[in-house]
Amino acid sequence: MDQTYDVVVLGAGSTGENVADIVVRGGLTAVLVENELVGGECSYWACMPSKALLRGTEVLAQARAVDGAAQAVTGEQDVDATLARRDTFTSHWDDSGQVEWVAGAGIDLIRGTGRLDGERTVVVTAADGSETRLTARHAVAVCTGSAAAVPPIPGLSGIEPWTPREATSAKDVPGRLLIIGGGVVGCEMATAWRGLGAEVTLVEQGAHLLPPLEPAAGEAVAAALRASGVDVRLDVGVSAARREGTEVVLTLSSGPAVPDEVRGDEVLVAVGRRARTTELGVDTVGLEPGKYLQVDDTMQVTGLPWLYGVGDVNGRRQLTHMGKYQARQAGAVIVARARGEEPDTSDWSPYVATADAVATPSVVFTDPQVASVGRTVAEAEEAGLPHRVVEYPIGQVSGAGLFADGYTGTAIAVVDTEREVLLGMTFIGPAVSELLQAATIAVVGEVPIGRLWHAVPAYPTINEIWLRLLETWRG
Amino acid sequence: MDQTYDVVVLGAGSTGENVADIVVRGGLTAVLVENELVGGECSYWACMPSKALLRGTEVLAQARAVDGAAQAVTGEQDVDATLARRDTFTSHWDDSGQVEWVAGAGIDLIRGTGRLDGERTVVVTAADGSETRLTARHAVAVCTGSAAAVPPIPGLSGIEPWTPREATSAKDVPGRLLIIGGGVVGCEMATAWRGLGAEVTLVEQGAHLLPPLEPAAGEAVAAALRASGVDVRLDVGVSAARREGTEVVLTLSSGPAVPDEVRGDEVLVAVGRRARTTELGVDTVGLEPGKYLQVDDTMQVTGLPWLYGVGDVNGRRQLTHMGKYQARQAGAVIVARARGEEPDTSDWSPYVATADAVATPSVVFTDPQVASVGRTVAEAEEAGLPHRVVEYPIGQVSGAGLFADGYTGTAIAVVDTEREVLLGMTFIGPAVSELLQAATIAVVGEVPIGRLWHAVPAYPTINEIWLRLLETWRG
Repeated sequence: MDQTYDVVVLGAGSTGENVADIVVRGGLTAVLVENELVGGECSYWACMPSKALLRGTEVLAQARAVDGAAQAVTGEQDVDATLARRDTFTSHWDDSGQVEWVAGAGIDLIRGTGRLDGERTVVVTAADGSETRLTARHAVAVCTGSAAAVPPIPGLSGIEPWTPREATSAKDVPGRLLIIGGGVVGCEMATAWRGLGAEVTLVEQGAHLLPPLEPAAGEAVAAALRASGVDVRLDVGVSAARREGTEVVLTLSSGPAVPDEVRGDEVLVAVGRRARTTELGVDTVGLEPGKYLQVDDTMQVTGLPWLYGVGDVNGRRQLTHMGKYQARQAGAVIVARARGEEPDTSDWSPYVATADAVATPSVVFTDPQVASVGRTVAEAEEAGLPHRVVEYPIGQVSGAGLFADGYTGTAIAVVDTEREVLLGMTFIGPAVSELLQAATIAVVGEVPIGRLWHAVPAYPTINEIWLRLLETWRG
Repeated sequence: MDQTYDVVVLGAGSTGENVADIVVRGGLTAVLVENELVGGECSYWACMPSKALLRGTEVLAQARAVDGAAQAVTGEQDVDATLARRDTFTSHWDDSGQVEWVAGAGIDLIRGTGRLDGERTVVVTAADGSETRLTARHAVAVCTGSAAAVPPIPGLSGIEPWTPREATSAKDVPGRLLIIGGGVVGCEMATAWRGLGAEVTLVEQGAHLLPPLEPAAGEAVAAALRASGVDVRLDVGVSAARREGTEVVLTLSSGPAVPDEVRGDEVLVAVGRRARTTELGVDTVGLEPGKYLQVDDTMQVTGLPWLYGVGDVNGRRQLTHMGKYQARQAGAVIVARARGEEPDTSDWSPYVATADAVATPSVVFTDPQVASVGRTVAEAEEAGLPHRVVEYPIGQVSGAGLFADGYTGTAIAVVDTEREVLLGMTFIGPAVSELLQAATIAVVGEVPIGRLWHAVPAYPTINEIWLRLLETWRG
């Protein structure tokens, strides 16, 4: 069967859904091709379930941190109810709600595995083996995302380790959970499952947790994980993995003073992502399978003007909200180009994902949370930008003290000393996730420091940190 | 005794402290005159104690709204501990910490009642009757704030009603609390004391609670107060007050269908503020006692270039953070003028309080909270600004659903359709107080809507409301 659409979208995660939605709103026809659940990683195996697993523990910690309220928390979290709540947020891994949304948005959906077969052509193989050949008049958008990378540790793949999918969808709390990797997923899952009662060991080969963020973030999270009972091991590699009965055993390649094995019931591998371009037929259009798609700021693949790579698959910023952002920009540019327009591709236009480079927000939902946007100190240095670092302990803000007894946190602002605008901000502390948008708007809006003095924070909120940072900047 | 300073500051609340601090940092000498506690209303009888009284109830409500966590909240709030925590945040009404800060900042402090005695002159009468005559070389800054207004209801002043001071500092939970006035103080105190177990009746003569804010705010708070058991009576006046034994009785001037008396153990009068200029000797410089000081955007009193009115006393914006903001601007302008400079007084300069008119943030710490900045719909209409209103239910944002089961809230954005910038924003919902700063920066920074699309909210936070509002704006 042959079908022609203006736009063919491979992958119906939130990124693909958004590309399709935008182009259909722009008057084009679009089809989504998906061989798993419509809604993608975020809805079923990432953001949603992980945050649902974390929320109960978080809010109870907040209640326990307020004398007077703490005395009301005399029971324990109902773990079964928390797992059931998680299941609700993943719609019990049923995508019918999303399918309904797709249909309502005027987007066609084809279930099956899509592969490129030369320029503007996608062949979809359904579960029953039948094939559909799709031709794209204007564009093919690859939104297949990324998959968990499994490092080449001897024995590891043979023992069926948890990937983030199993870690977020587990039906029971593991008794003893081993985690390889101290990035965002490793730290969030350590926090989540420890909060639900698991014994957790986290092994990170680097010297810090959360390596791309400000070092203070990883330090604060490591200290908090340890205080909660997680065995955090830094500078430790894993040299082998095996099963002994129901036990998982990891051999550690650390110094002699550290025991050279850890044992658990499950092991989560959380060492990063790889592009989902392996089975995609990208070789039929001259690209190398398994590699991230190289794209420009409109998400157009280098040298292939009809091909777009949007979301995780381009390796720019692997975050749900940035995938959706890229999807909005790419969708708009596809529509404009289909109309024969020459869209403005200068910074901050509606057709480019400028924020990818200079204003990407990210939140790590650990306790403390880490919320950051824009450039870290190291990134400002590397970019050769004239800058000054302004830090302030969030706990000294009245609103933070009211929020929680003994509130501990840090705000780290990176200020461009020539343009006097904010280059980046990192908040570390309980409940800082909702503080981030203010910094994102300041960075994106390039609001001058002189003007920010007029953006008065309401008293007494934690946001008074803005005033403290400005006062520290003034000196 | 005679003393001369560059700047004499009447009133050592947070506003006066900030004026003095800024001018001393600018190289001038300054003295603070205070006849009550150094630190002022906010520290002892307003922001700090009220938020401390509210926090325990708030965080427990949040825990109860998360299935799984809710099951851990099997006990009750420890009211004595909450009151003790409140006492900690007011430093047990002891100002020695603030006095220490004043001294450390290089500011002199004179305890006593200050009165103007002609141009640039203040006479301070100490508790022992001794007098000090202060001469200001450059400026006198009046930062005496405001006091609770007591309406002329027959019998009311004779029964010693609570003002906000007594309501925030009460040592015990009143059994039955009557509240006259449904503004910010009335609503916050109804929420606080109801949360701590009091039976509360709130009487408001207008049709809405929180009248200057978006009508939806007052409606949401009224519904929530009623759901929590508060007897909220709108469109009801109070025509008389009396005591019967230990009981307080209010006669209501409402329609015949409503009982014409309410009884309680205490009555809080929260109908607004009056300028604290009555005993201030303003008549010696040609001003009328009891009136708010008329000032320009540098806080300079009309016709008296040596006199500044900063904070509540000028009636512009009666909020702690706006008093401090005005103090920073006025302090800077006093220093500049003392140096013989002609400071830039155009909008958004460091010497004017531009945000007073167009970007004042305010938070009402009820449940739901109400956080607003800039112009309401009615204010945009009144100002004749071309605008469009964009609304979105916050509960439909994933981050809100994760935050609390059944999260209900609303965001109301007022967008200038000519300049395509945000004129105002109101968030109504649990925990929205920390969402506000983003809107404040967007309003103050006059960040174009086109640019705000690049300010990507982190997923899944409540701040994704920004994306929903933009999508709604786009249509």
